[in-house]
Amino acid sequence: MSVFMEDLDAFTYRERLATGNRLVIVPVGSVEQHGPHLPLTTDVLLARAVSGRLAQAVGALVAAPVVYGYKSQQRSGGGNHLGGTTSLDATTMIAIARTLTHEFARHGAEGVIFLNGHFENYQFLYEGAELATRELAARGSDLEAMLLSYWDFVDDATLEEVYAGSFPGWDVEHGGVLETSLMLHLHPELVDLGRVMDFPPAELPRYDLLPVRPELTPASGCLSSAARGSAGAGRLLLERTTTALTEAVDGAFQRNLVASTETNP
Amino acid sequence: MSVFMEDLDAFTYRERLATGNRLVIVPVGSVEQHGPHLPLTTDVLLARAVSGRLAQAVGALVAAPVVYGYKSQQRSGGGNHLGGTTSLDATTMIAIARTLTHEFARHGAEGVIFLNGHFENYQFLYEGAELATRELAARGSDLEAMLLSYWDFVDDATLEEVYAGSFPGWDVEHGGVLETSLMLHLHPELVDLGRVMDFPPAELPRYDLLPVRPELTPASGCLSSAARGSAGAGRLLLERTTTALTEAVDGAFQRNLVASTETNP
Amino acid sequence: MSVFMEDLDAFTYRERLATGNRLVIVPVGSVEQHGPHLPLTTDVLLARAVSGRLAQAVGALVAAPVVYGYKSQQRSGGGNHLGGTTSLDATTMIAIARTLTHEFARHGAEGVIFLNGHFENYQFLYEGAELATRELAARGSDLEAMLLSYWDFVDDATLEEVYAGSFPGWDVEHGGVLETSLMLHLHPELVDLGRVMDFPPAELPRYDLLPVRPELTPASGCLSSAARGSAGAGRLLLERTTTALTEAVDGAFQRNLVASTETNP
Amino acid sequence: MSVFMEDLDAFTYRERLATGNRLVIVPVGSVEQHGPHLPLTTDVLLARAVSGRLAQAVGALVAAPVVYGYKSQQRSGGGNHLGGTTSLDATTMIAIARTLTHEFARHGAEGVIFLNGHFENYQFLYEGAELATRELAARGSDLEAMLLSYWDFVDDATLEEVYAGSFPGWDVEHGGVLETSLMLHLHPELVDLGRVMDFPPAELPRYDLLPVRPELTPASGCLSSAARGSAGAGRLLLERTTTALTEAVDGAFQRNLVASTETNP
Amino acid sequence: MSVFMEDLDAFTYRERLATGNRLVIVPVGSVEQHGPHLPLTTDVLLARAVSGRLAQAVGALVAAPVVYGYKSQQRSGGGNHLGGTTSLDATTMIAIARTLTHEFARHGAEGVIFLNGHFENYQFLYEGAELATRELAARGSDLEAMLLSYWDFVDDATLEEVYAGSFPGWDVEHGGVLETSLMLHLHPELVDLGRVMDFPPAELPRYDLLPVRPELTPASGCLSSAARGSAGAGRLLLERTTTALTEAVDGAFQRNLVASTETNP
Amino acid sequence: MSVFMEDLDAFTYRERLATGNRLVIVPVGSVEQHGPHLPLTTDVLLARAVSGRLAQAVGALVAAPVVYGYKSQQRSGGGNHLGGTTSLDATTMIAIARTLTHEFARHGAEGVIFLNGHFENYQFLYEGAELATRELAARGSDLEAMLLSYWDFVDDATLEEVYAGSFPGWDVEHGGVLETSLMLHLHPELVDLGRVMDFPPAELPRYDLLPVRPELTPASGCLSSAARGSAGAGRLLLERTTTALTEAVDGAFQRNLVASTETNP
Repeated sequence: MSVFMEDLDAFTYRERLATGNRLVIVPVGSVEQHGPHLPLTTDVLLARAVSGRLAQAVGALVAAPVVYGYKSQQRSGGGNHLGGTTSLDATTMIAIARTLTHEFARHGAEGVIFLNGHFENYQFLYEGAELATRELAARGSDLEAMLLSYWDFVDDATLEEVYAGSFPGWDVEHGGVLETSLMLHLHPELVDLGRVMDFPPAELPRYDLLPVRPELTPASGCLSSAARGSAGAGRLLLERTTTALTEAVDGAFQRNLVASTETNP
Repeated sequence: MSVFMEDLDAFTYRERLATGNRLVIVPVGSVEQHGPHLPLTTDVLLARAVSGRLAQAVGALVAAPVVYGYKSQQRSGGGNHLGGTTSLDATTMIAIARTLTHEFARHGAEGVIFLNGHFENYQFLYEGAELATRELAARGSDLEAMLLSYWDFVDDATLEEVYAGSFPGWDVEHGGVLETSLMLHLHPELVDLGRVMDFPPAELPRYDLLPVRPELTPASGCLSSAARGSAGAGRLLLERTTTALTEAVDGAFQRNLVASTETNP
Repeated sequence: MSVFMEDLDAFTYRERLATGNRLVIVPVGSVEQHGPHLPLTTDVLLARAVSGRLAQAVGALVAAPVVYGYKSQQRSGGGNHLGGTTSLDATTMIAIARTLTHEFARHGAEGVIFLNGHFENYQFLYEGAELATRELAARGSDLEAMLLSYWDFVDDATLEEVYAGSFPGWDVEHGGVLETSLMLHLHPELVDLGRVMDFPPAELPRYDLLPVRPELTPASGCLSSAARGSAGAGRLLLERTTTALTEAVDGAFQRNLVASTETNP
Repeated sequence: MSVFMEDLDAFTYRERLATGNRLVIVPVGSVEQHGPHLPLTTDVLLARAVSGRLAQAVGALVAAPVVYGYKSQQRSGGGNHLGGTTSLDATTMIAIARTLTHEFARHGAEGVIFLNGHFENYQFLYEGAELATRELAARGSDLEAMLLSYWDFVDDATLEEVYAGSFPGWDVEHGGVLETSLMLHLHPELVDLGRVMDFPPAELPRYDLLPVRPELTPASGCLSSAARGSAGAGRLLLERTTTALTEAVDGAFQRNLVASTETNP
Repeated sequence: MSVFMEDLDAFTYRERLATGNRLVIVPVGSVEQHGPHLPLTTDVLLARAVSGRLAQAVGALVAAPVVYGYKSQQRSGGGNHLGGTTSLDATTMIAIARTLTHEFARHGAEGVIFLNGHFENYQFLYEGAELATRELAARGSDLEAMLLSYWDFVDDATLEEVYAGSFPGWDVEHGGVLETSLMLHLHPELVDLGRVMDFPPAELPRYDLLPVRPELTPASGCLSSAARGSAGAGRLLLERTTTALTEAVDGAFQRNLVASTETNP
Repeated sequence: MSVFMEDLDAFTYRERLATGNRLVIVPVGSVEQHGPHLPLTTDVLLARAVSGRLAQAVGALVAAPVVYGYKSQQRSGGGNHLGGTTSLDATTMIAIARTLTHEFARHGAEGVIFLNGHFENYQFLYEGAELATRELAARGSDLEAMLLSYWDFVDDATLEEVYAGSFPGWDVEHGGVLETSLMLHLHPELVDLGRVMDFPPAELPRYDLLPVRPELTPASGCLSSAARGSAGAGRLLLERTTTALTEAVDGAFQRNLVASTETNP
């Protein structure tokens, strides 16, 4: 049975939440250029897919995604001046995270997991969750929010396997091997490998300048090359990440978590 | 070729926007209970589908959807106290509409159409678009925003055909014949007609009370019965609505609009 | 004795609130052009007058009015581009409704009724009252807010009597028969019937465009003609509306409501 | 002819503004306890009356009043904990002043004068006007905002005449001789001198404590006694103040200001 | 031992707060031109120094200062158009006061004293403290906030001694005798008496105009002359003010306050 | 001559800014526990000191510091639940960065450099600077904002020299070798090495949990041990960092930057 709230009617959702582990995973993405070979909603699709795997594994539900994210920054996403990239301000992202935490608490959730798929979102999700959990605690609720970016759960061995020593760092992974491989595994029809621009990793300064100087972003909009990407690497990354995330959620919420197929027959 | 931004890479999106009619349609939905027979994201799915048909007809692009909407109100959506319904505050909705208008203006759009699929959203989208277009006009931009709810384009003849005299009013159409028929036509796998609760239309007072009194909302969460719904009625509603919307957009933007298959070969 | 807070000193106000039905009615208006024959504060004057009648009938007090309202929209008030129309932003209207609800709760009110006289205000009053009542409920208060627009309490029989089959719909009633008749009955010195521009009802599209296209608004600024208006119709409308409102408030607050002259000797 | 916007239709308002001195005076008051002998809206009534006199003298128009004001502070108004006192937050007051400045600029005003009748409002009106005039200047507008509290225009000779050496300071004038005398002159039907509590001026500390300690506020809610108030003193205060304000406005806007009866025949 | 939080490690701070009088004094200043003879952070330095003396006397701790303040106003600080003056908006000042009150409450403080050194800040600190103490009270906290401007504690005898009959009023004391004398006493290395411009006190109107008319501010940026300032006067002012403040704090918090050297051995 | 705005009068500041490189460096810190051996304002002191060195080298001025910063997060600063840590919300930090950028632009600065000394601040400074530079660009200003955290300019060779292979990562450097060494070099009187708690680096999870679980933070509040810290390492770190920052600023602003002692004789 589907773990995605989007596929459920309200009666089923309520029953699943009440009888399951009371965990809701919120995938958070962005609408952001990802070069000529990946779709604009790559971050949404990947956050949603990882959330689905994780929800299956721990008996959680997946909320409808937060589609639009915070502004793309030049050092991690090419910059928000690029056409197609469509972003929200900080206060809006904060408000979204804050309100959704309150709403899932109202539904009876005991844990809300923001699973982030867009580097720039993190601090704003943090602030929203911080405000909401503080407000909830003041009213006696013990809801916990968990925040994470899925790539932080790729271990060094997997990095070595996938990148063979050429891992350029997460900051310039934008539109690179990780995202391309995962998309090739999950949504191959939306990837056009023939359009990959094979540049060496971008060398961006250790500071930000605003307004951005467009010439610092590579022509591709990607910060490292996706040429090494493959569906096989994508499958591997997804499996390893899901396993590590499952352990993390299991540990954090200290429960006997069982796969959703069992808890929700 | 797809009119959905979600399916396009940034390079293609930019080219399509620059060479097309420079119109972007933003579907706006909600995550809201729609009774036991429809999924929580019914409003998103319908706004997105109507937007796609309209975009095909007028040569526009469809933005990634605004998934979460304003709070469900008891007289039009059953109330925001119900489990599953997951909503944003007014200021957040306003900020989303305001920022997206600015972002599509930055991309080079000349018209942004907010196609609303959730009754309660309208005034907040209006405020966001009003603020943004005023700010843009002060800088010399002549971007225009258009706001509409798709059901306002169902004409009386179609209402008569679909409802056979039993049209209960748009305010109580929540989870009723219109939405159910459209879903049966577009996403039959997400509808379970066997779970429809066949009540007469809800009789709600001419005022709002807050906090809501839950007993005023029917047990189904729907404000009128979907029992008369059918895929055929859905197809008819979609066709008629698309035609009326196409005329409206054509008239509003006073252009020689051609179907996107021609303008974007 | 006056039911208007504006006429009372604080000691009397406190006593009246403590010994009466603990209901406060807040009239909400606007400063908005109403054609060449009605004053700019028509909505304030009418909301205030209806509030006074209702307060007399149910034993409530009338708060000082909220004078400025939300922006006039082209399809219901001619548009906010017109000279004389002077409006507040959405967040300000929300803040006003939210704060006033809290303030009257602090005074000891058990019910706060926002009696709206300007079409465009409703959703923003709703949001303000929603936020305040939620916050109050979290602190153990059981204050209830009621929201209504007074014209929703004009029944079909009265419409038929007043309009004789020519009722154009509430959305285009701006500056039309209802408002003009009520003003003729209540404030004849502020109405100049000789300046009425007798046009057929405006035909506005089913969508909003921003910035508004001024040419869509009739030269009068009114959306339907006031030529049929009369003091007699005004008296009838006021009586019928007051009666219906009294029943509604009585029903909503489920009390033995007695006229204020009795409860507050 | 009336100088009050509230009495004018939009066509007349526009003509008056276009052909007059293009000055709009906005009276700003409060809903605040003023002891047992004065009504809750004393500040609104006085600001409105002074504005009317000033408008007559300088050829300006008077906007509809800002009725609700900033919170009453213990050292100048008794404190916001008192029943009947009904106040807005700082950000709301700022937003009101900011938006109204923009709105009157849109109408074609060249000067907006906030005539304050409630001590606590001043800094928030200042901030609103500061933000708006800065924004307007950035767009090329040269609208000027003027801010003043009317009692600052009572000269020492008049103070001596009215108080005969017992002037207690403006901070504790709340509900005292000035306001009571003006009300006796302007709205005697709303004053009940028999209810004046004749205490010596309150001795409040040189600091604020929050939450306020209610016992520091006199039982009357007034900070000085109104017993010396008289209609004659009120007339004198109104005349002198109007004269001084007229000179100030004349000087500030450096125009040949003529009484409105002449400029607007 | 230092009473300044800035000099303490967290462990020592916690111990001092827990075993002392649980009072935290927050010095609030500004970055504002103070003429050619005083540094831009004069208000910060003075608020911090007075806070230190007061903390010693009453057994409190001094928080790190709020360095930037509200906009300089022409009638009290020369105006915010002047180079060097660097100010925050009202909502930011309010947020700072609100948040700091909450933070010190979280640390276990029972009283938070905002000791203001910049005329224009007061109302915004008030609003922030008002919001925070109301929120804290709703949660059962009995934290009290105290707000004061240090010059309000200079008594008439001292004024006479220092100004010898020429006291120009606090509003035009900006960069004048008080601040210069205190700086000569406390930070003589930052004062250059040779650069004092010896003008008579500025004669500013009884109203504000925005945008400000720069020609109304004296060329020095000071509103009265500092020529009479001396280190001796500074010492006297500091001593007298500290004594009066100590009495006020002692009285307000009604405790047996002992000098910090004793309570924190 | 001092490069610190805090030491300058307004006339000197204006002259220095007008005749120098028109760069203003804003040190941004925090009030945050840094273990038992470092003062609460360590981040302010270090950001200020590095800013001073940099300003000397490139001919810039140093603004008064932003003292309070964003909430301490458990994975980079121990968490905001700890006593002594005193933080602002995200929207306040954003507003501060936004307003200061506007203020220095008004003074005539062409570049504003936010030199960050507290890990958690970065994204909020970015948002503030992004909003301000966008607004300024819309008005024709070409002011540029630069954002950086000073530790990002410590190169690998220096890390090796200082840590001898034991560098634990910047995220857990809180209260560790870098900060302690710099403080020993710059403010030895505020460091108490005898109080260092010598634990191995904290092992925090790859996610955040809110409310934080206090037991995850080491008892010291530090995330790695400062035992290896020394004044010599501090001097080395300061020199190398200043050199790298100077090159970065020189490169970014592409000017012939000369040391301030020459440009401002």
